[in-house]
Amino acid sequence: MLDSLAVNPQNDVVDRFIIARKQTEALAAPLSEADAQLQSMPDASPAKWHLAHTTWFFETFILCEYAPNYQRFNERYNYLFNSYYNGIGDQYPRQQRGLISRPSLHEVLEYRQVITSKLLELAEKNANHQPLMELIELGIQHEQQHQELLLTDIKHAFFQNPTFPAYAPHADISASIPTIGSTASSTSTGFALDWLSIDSGMVNIGFDQTGFSFDNERPSHQAYLHPFQLCSALATNGHYLEFIDSGGYQIPEFWLADGWAWLQSNRATRQGVYKHPLYWITRGNDWFEYSLRGLLPIDRQQPLTHISYYEACAYAAWAGARLPTEFEWEAATKHYDITPECIDIKLSPQSLKKKPQALKSESPLEQAFGSAWQWTTSSYSAYPGFSPFEGLAGEYNGKFMSNQSVLRGSSCVTPLGHARTTYRNFFYASQSWQFSGVRLAKNI
Amino acid sequence: MLDSLAVNPQNDVVDRFIIARKQTEALAAPLSEADAQLQSMPDASPAKWHLAHTTWFFETFILCEYAPNYQRFNERYNYLFNSYYNGIGDQYPRQQRGLISRPSLHEVLEYRQVITSKLLELAEKNANHQPLMELIELGIQHEQQHQELLLTDIKHAFFQNPTFPAYAPHADISASIPTIGSTASSTSTGFALDWLSIDSGMVNIGFDQTGFSFDNERPSHQAYLHPFQLCSALATNGHYLEFIDSGGYQIPEFWLADGWAWLQSNRATRQGVYKHPLYWITRGNDWFEYSLRGLLPIDRQQPLTHISYYEACAYAAWAGARLPTEFEWEAATKHYDITPECIDIKLSPQSLKKKPQALKSESPLEQAFGSAWQWTTSSYSAYPGFSPFEGLAGEYNGKFMSNQSVLRGSSCVTPLGHARTTYRNFFYASQSWQFSGVRLAKNI
Amino acid sequence: MLDSLAVNPQNDVVDRFIIARKQTEALAAPLSEADAQLQSMPDASPAKWHLAHTTWFFETFILCEYAPNYQRFNERYNYLFNSYYNGIGDQYPRQQRGLISRPSLHEVLEYRQVITSKLLELAEKNANHQPLMELIELGIQHEQQHQELLLTDIKHAFFQNPTFPAYAPHADISASIPTIGSTASSTSTGFALDWLSIDSGMVNIGFDQTGFSFDNERPSHQAYLHPFQLCSALATNGHYLEFIDSGGYQIPEFWLADGWAWLQSNRATRQGVYKHPLYWITRGNDWFEYSLRGLLPIDRQQPLTHISYYEACAYAAWAGARLPTEFEWEAATKHYDITPECIDIKLSPQSLKKKPQALKSESPLEQAFGSAWQWTTSSYSAYPGFSPFEGLAGEYNGKFMSNQSVLRGSSCVTPLGHARTTYRNFFYASQSWQFSGVRLAKNI
Amino acid sequence: MLDSLAVNPQNDVVDRFIIARKQTEALAAPLSEADAQLQSMPDASPAKWHLAHTTWFFETFILCEYAPNYQRFNERYNYLFNSYYNGIGDQYPRQQRGLISRPSLHEVLEYRQVITSKLLELAEKNANHQPLMELIELGIQHEQQHQELLLTDIKHAFFQNPTFPAYAPHADISASIPTIGSTASSTSTGFALDWLSIDSGMVNIGFDQTGFSFDNERPSHQAYLHPFQLCSALATNGHYLEFIDSGGYQIPEFWLADGWAWLQSNRATRQGVYKHPLYWITRGNDWFEYSLRGLLPIDRQQPLTHISYYEACAYAAWAGARLPTEFEWEAATKHYDITPECIDIKLSPQSLKKKPQALKSESPLEQAFGSAWQWTTSSYSAYPGFSPFEGLAGEYNGKFMSNQSVLRGSSCVTPLGHARTTYRNFFYASQSWQFSGVRLAKNI
Repeated sequence: MLDSLAVNPQNDVVDRFIIARKQTEALAAPLSEADAQLQSMPDASPAKWHLAHTTWFFETFILCEYAPNYQRFNERYNYLFNSYYNGIGDQYPRQQRGLISRPSLHEVLEYRQVITSKLLELAEKNANHQPLMELIELGIQHEQQHQELLLTDIKHAFFQNPTFPAYAPHADISASIPTIGSTASSTSTGFALDWLSIDSGMVNIGFDQTGFSFDNERPSHQAYLHPFQLCSALATNGHYLEFIDSGGYQIPEFWLADGWAWLQSNRATRQGVYKHPLYWITRGNDWFEYSLRGLLPIDRQQPLTHISYYEACAYAAWAGARLPTEFEWEAATKHYDITPECIDIKLSPQSLKKKPQALKSESPLEQAFGSAWQWTTSSYSAYPGFSPFEGLAGEYNGKFMSNQSVLRGSSCVTPLGHARTTYRNFFYASQSWQFSGVRLAKNI
Repeated sequence: MLDSLAVNPQNDVVDRFIIARKQTEALAAPLSEADAQLQSMPDASPAKWHLAHTTWFFETFILCEYAPNYQRFNERYNYLFNSYYNGIGDQYPRQQRGLISRPSLHEVLEYRQVITSKLLELAEKNANHQPLMELIELGIQHEQQHQELLLTDIKHAFFQNPTFPAYAPHADISASIPTIGSTASSTSTGFALDWLSIDSGMVNIGFDQTGFSFDNERPSHQAYLHPFQLCSALATNGHYLEFIDSGGYQIPEFWLADGWAWLQSNRATRQGVYKHPLYWITRGNDWFEYSLRGLLPIDRQQPLTHISYYEACAYAAWAGARLPTEFEWEAATKHYDITPECIDIKLSPQSLKKKPQALKSESPLEQAFGSAWQWTTSSYSAYPGFSPFEGLAGEYNGKFMSNQSVLRGSSCVTPLGHARTTYRNFFYASQSWQFSGVRLAKNI
Repeated sequence: MLDSLAVNPQNDVVDRFIIARKQTEALAAPLSEADAQLQSMPDASPAKWHLAHTTWFFETFILCEYAPNYQRFNERYNYLFNSYYNGIGDQYPRQQRGLISRPSLHEVLEYRQVITSKLLELAEKNANHQPLMELIELGIQHEQQHQELLLTDIKHAFFQNPTFPAYAPHADISASIPTIGSTASSTSTGFALDWLSIDSGMVNIGFDQTGFSFDNERPSHQAYLHPFQLCSALATNGHYLEFIDSGGYQIPEFWLADGWAWLQSNRATRQGVYKHPLYWITRGNDWFEYSLRGLLPIDRQQPLTHISYYEACAYAAWAGARLPTEFEWEAATKHYDITPECIDIKLSPQSLKKKPQALKSESPLEQAFGSAWQWTTSSYSAYPGFSPFEGLAGEYNGKFMSNQSVLRGSSCVTPLGHARTTYRNFFYASQSWQFSGVRLAKNI
Repeated sequence: MLDSLAVNPQNDVVDRFIIARKQTEALAAPLSEADAQLQSMPDASPAKWHLAHTTWFFETFILCEYAPNYQRFNERYNYLFNSYYNGIGDQYPRQQRGLISRPSLHEVLEYRQVITSKLLELAEKNANHQPLMELIELGIQHEQQHQELLLTDIKHAFFQNPTFPAYAPHADISASIPTIGSTASSTSTGFALDWLSIDSGMVNIGFDQTGFSFDNERPSHQAYLHPFQLCSALATNGHYLEFIDSGGYQIPEFWLADGWAWLQSNRATRQGVYKHPLYWITRGNDWFEYSLRGLLPIDRQQPLTHISYYEACAYAAWAGARLPTEFEWEAATKHYDITPECIDIKLSPQSLKKKPQALKSESPLEQAFGSAWQWTTSSYSAYPGFSPFEGLAGEYNGKFMSNQSVLRGSSCVTPLGHARTTYRNFFYASQSWQFSGVRLAKNI
């Protein structure tokens, strides 16, 4: 079973279940049935699939296990909407998810309503059933992960359309976190970066609180860190433009061997795309960035996003620095007592957070959460003493522990309540369709 | 300009234009917006794209040329919906057509209405403008080609869905052409095949009538044919089952070298798919065929369809015969005075023709039209003295004259009025998503 | 059995067998063991493999069939050196032939000697055994085909080496066919091309002589040709430079759709290679051509070679002409009574024919043989009444009759005695490592 | 410059240089010129290339830098034999190294003699020039790495030959390390595995001795380890057969997600190859293993080799264990005071070490060195405070620090003097052509 989860009566798991379900539907609301069908690459999934798969998760791991005499809503959905759980059965090929026009979006939304209702009914009858409550919590966290993916996947899909449709053209961003001073010129990179120094010593890594965490954040354990410096804020678009303008994409010495090979091969197949971050394009002499609000001029003060690990490492090498390890990142965040709660904003199409610009918080460590996931040099692997979730959910995390790099923090599209100081996100080195950015580190 | 086209007052081109436009929309009517978005392989296009592209064709080749001060409906559509006309401009990548969720299906249907109206208005004012009328005729023929493709493409897309949705579940097929006798058992291949003998001699090949024809059917010219035999009817599913059951897919001697290589490579990547025709599957010990009406048991008496050229040649070799040349096919059809008019049936989702079974017509040459396109050994190339359409439509046919094989006749989803004795369809040897079948030939 | 073959007592098949065997070895003589091992692409084979395979052919089709109690030289060679005869057994994967370092070149040469001796012994005892003599003739013809391939394959392999080694650096080319006049400037394309006109009418196509021919040249049959014009000589490097300089590689209208796609895909993967013929490279502002004698400046008066079908068609379109059909080519050659005998030159590394420049022969039809294979628009298919060689040799030609185009004539590396007016060579449209060139045709 | 290197007068660098150069040539001696040309995959290189590249390394990093007025032996070799040093210049494409038949093997051996002589001359004149001596040491270590690669690459190349040639058919293995007792039956897996327990605590990681080490082994630093258990010996062929026989290759739960995907994709393209280790084949009901001595029956008591990381992890999961981290491996080896010196054997084709079977040494930790490289779960990354070699050699290690896993120990083909307790070998998870094996670990 999941580890001990202290259900907070003020923030009841059932309430949060309802909120999570509604929030996913709200995020899908601006999409037409055709939009919800799009799959622009094997890594990404259609919005409709996200709506269905998160529902299948509750149905499979909870209703099928705990609801008496439960009959599946539709037997075929167990094949269509299983992502990668071999323990449960075969799966429809991932790269073909965009070919499933039926069930329709309407039918999938109906599926959602039915499962949500049945789950609420079950939860009501079993309010004190701890393992059940823990699985609901896991389902909520799972749904939140797919909320972020729904947004990054639709962004990638819309970007393939030369008309650059906006997901949320009228999102209110006036209330976003203010920049430092209104006098920052448009060519400024924003602000001077400070280097924060952390001493060597034993640190505590991993999750040791009450409440939910993923199996890969545990067990909490000691690690010895050598002294290092960490940058006070994230690299900005302006910083990265300097890298580009100084020829950074043409100089192999800055690049990992695999990164250079990746760069050459991609250049060959899609001219120009990889001489800059994924969503950047030029119009005349100006740089633009495709965003969920449509095509916008590059803002040099905003945090850099949509960077592959290879680009992050090349940029760091050019800057005479390196990326932090995930342990350095976690230790620094704990050292400065930064928690995601301070800055979380409720996510909806109407209130997409603008990527926070140069802000000046109370803490010297800026933008740990809520701006961009931060690549680390740590490869994704098991903590000492790691044991996966029990039961069928054991495939959730452990089997991905090869060839991927850990990203820390959270992004501007991470849902409220999903970020944690110990959270470990992970992607392949070539992937850049997430809101992934760079925080530099240095040896002392 | 297009060749002399005698507009028939009883069958006015403008009337047929209206019918063609409506018919395409009727064929798309059973599709949801998600269905209309599907693209299951680079060869196939979404239904929405067919709706838009045929409209773009009228707009580009007629309104832009002849309508005074014409402004395009939407400039971006000229990039999105141009198929392959380099003379007109760049094209959105073909294999990504399924990623264009916007314009929506609704907007594309609106685009259709506007262009249809403007074209009718232009035609009314220029009823005696011969070149204009010829271009409208070309646009109608073009639209009819895409009607057939719309059906074959949606069939391929739906087949990727493991729930096997039916495009036209309630199509009325009770009135279809009757079989010979009700006593034919379900395991019968239908009927004995007759061999029709044709003598050697000079024959007239190509289109020499009034009315429309494609540039590739012309000029009409003489050719000398050697004596040959042609099968009186098409190969049936039952015949092909005998080939399969006798190990035909495992014996290299029956196969062209390229066909055998194709077979090995496809077997490797999609297990089992190519040990039988494209849409055949087994359930237990029984064979089923996916059709526009859904998954149905194989009918051994129906004509075999969805066969690649490689499969057609292997089947012929197994049967101790060969495929005809396109000239043999045309000469025999003219010899027996078969024209498509006798058997044409209006095409709609409600009246999809069942593939005609063993019928007994007046003529000894059965099923020349309306059942399945018939592969020939003729590669698609220019007739002596060939000259392409003038102007921008010159890219219509000529540039495809390499690596493809000619198919003759017409299929059960070819629209009324589109078939001709001299019509030359063409596909690559590995393609089988068209209703392509086999009529055997022999040397004498 | 092979068709009736009148063995010429003055040119005895056994003598020619000895000559053919020695000639192959002479062609391989300049190669080191490492050279003889090279395989630069799946289409090409190592020289050592050619030496072994031609030997395997005699062993398999003759000794195994006719020599009493024959035991194979080495059972494993039957797997290693079978090219594509499924009727005989499995084959070592073609694309891996370059990985067979053992047997060594020395062992393969020993294999050759043993089989040659045994075959001579058998032939001596059976001098009047017609079927045996016909199979020896087939083996000679087969060996001659591989002599040409040995040269084109080693040329391709050496071209991958940036030091551009010469196969025959000291070949005597002083005695080559003289150019027209010594005053031709180096920028001249050589000479004005004449257009020869041929009337319509019935012509005789295919082999109807005594002596050897391949099954694909038969049966001799009548065909009706429409009037056409054929160019008196081959296109030269100078002509093709005009095509390049006028932007021919950048203008899609000149290209077949498949050719344009081929051009784009290859450009993407190997920059620059396909903006010019295969073996052309630039050094500063000058064009050079890699040849069997090493890297040489382009000679504008030499016939163009190493052209794909796509390039040939684009060049013809640019020149306002087309390629001939194979029947037009054959009819014209017969009309002008051109036979290869006039110009054949014995092939050896010491006397590689320079590609004949602008020559002035007695006949108005120049360079039909001995310069470059000439692409035709005819796809490779069976003649009316075609029947393959009997027995295991039936796989020799027939199974390749799809997707390939016929080339006519012969090239500067075709062995003495191998060319025929009715000879049909065939390659895929994208292939250009043969000495393939262009003779233009036109409609009248 | 390289870090401080205390040249041992008893083990003089110049003497070892001479030995290393001779040893490489001795390893290549059994190869014909054709053998030395073979390249069976992009990862592997021809033996001739190894001979040339190691020579180029001495020429480029030492003679070009320190020899007065030095002129390269051949300017083209700087392009042909540069492996991956972008700082020095462009490189001939790696996957085409097998296409360089010229320079010949003889010329490359001559190149070796000349460079060896010039280097000795230079070294003699500069015996006290510390940076020069350090670079010679680096060149020796580099040459030793290529000695091992020469053997693994030729093994892979010969395995493609269906005659399974032996590299060293007459290697003397009678003197190899004895097995425990002669009574071990051929179906025994050898011996019971012991689990050695190591306590938690701070450990010293990395190289802190005098003598040579690579930059990636430094700096020596402290790390905190949690308690763990390590297996006393390597997994044997017998153990792995149990995994295979129990269906290990068919059960996804044992596999990393990437490993399962790799398994499926490879199964599709080369049937059967990956249902067992790379060099295993079945003949009838028996398992055989291809070795440098030819095809031999599987010895169940020998250490398992040629395992990918994916296979190693799946085997560990099946065994209820895991792989160690590289730090656990190093800490245990230091704990038990195992050094490679005890077991090193001089490497030559005549004395290829048999993979040591179940041996019983003084130490409880068996087979740390000299049997098989041992996969660890540690991804290859920089130690805290890492700085690459200065100068052009800086590309030696650092740029490969992504996507690869560390292997520890050494193998049966690692040269004398090349193994170290702190040595970090690294390969991609799918690679298995090295002598890579498994030592299990466990949490306590």
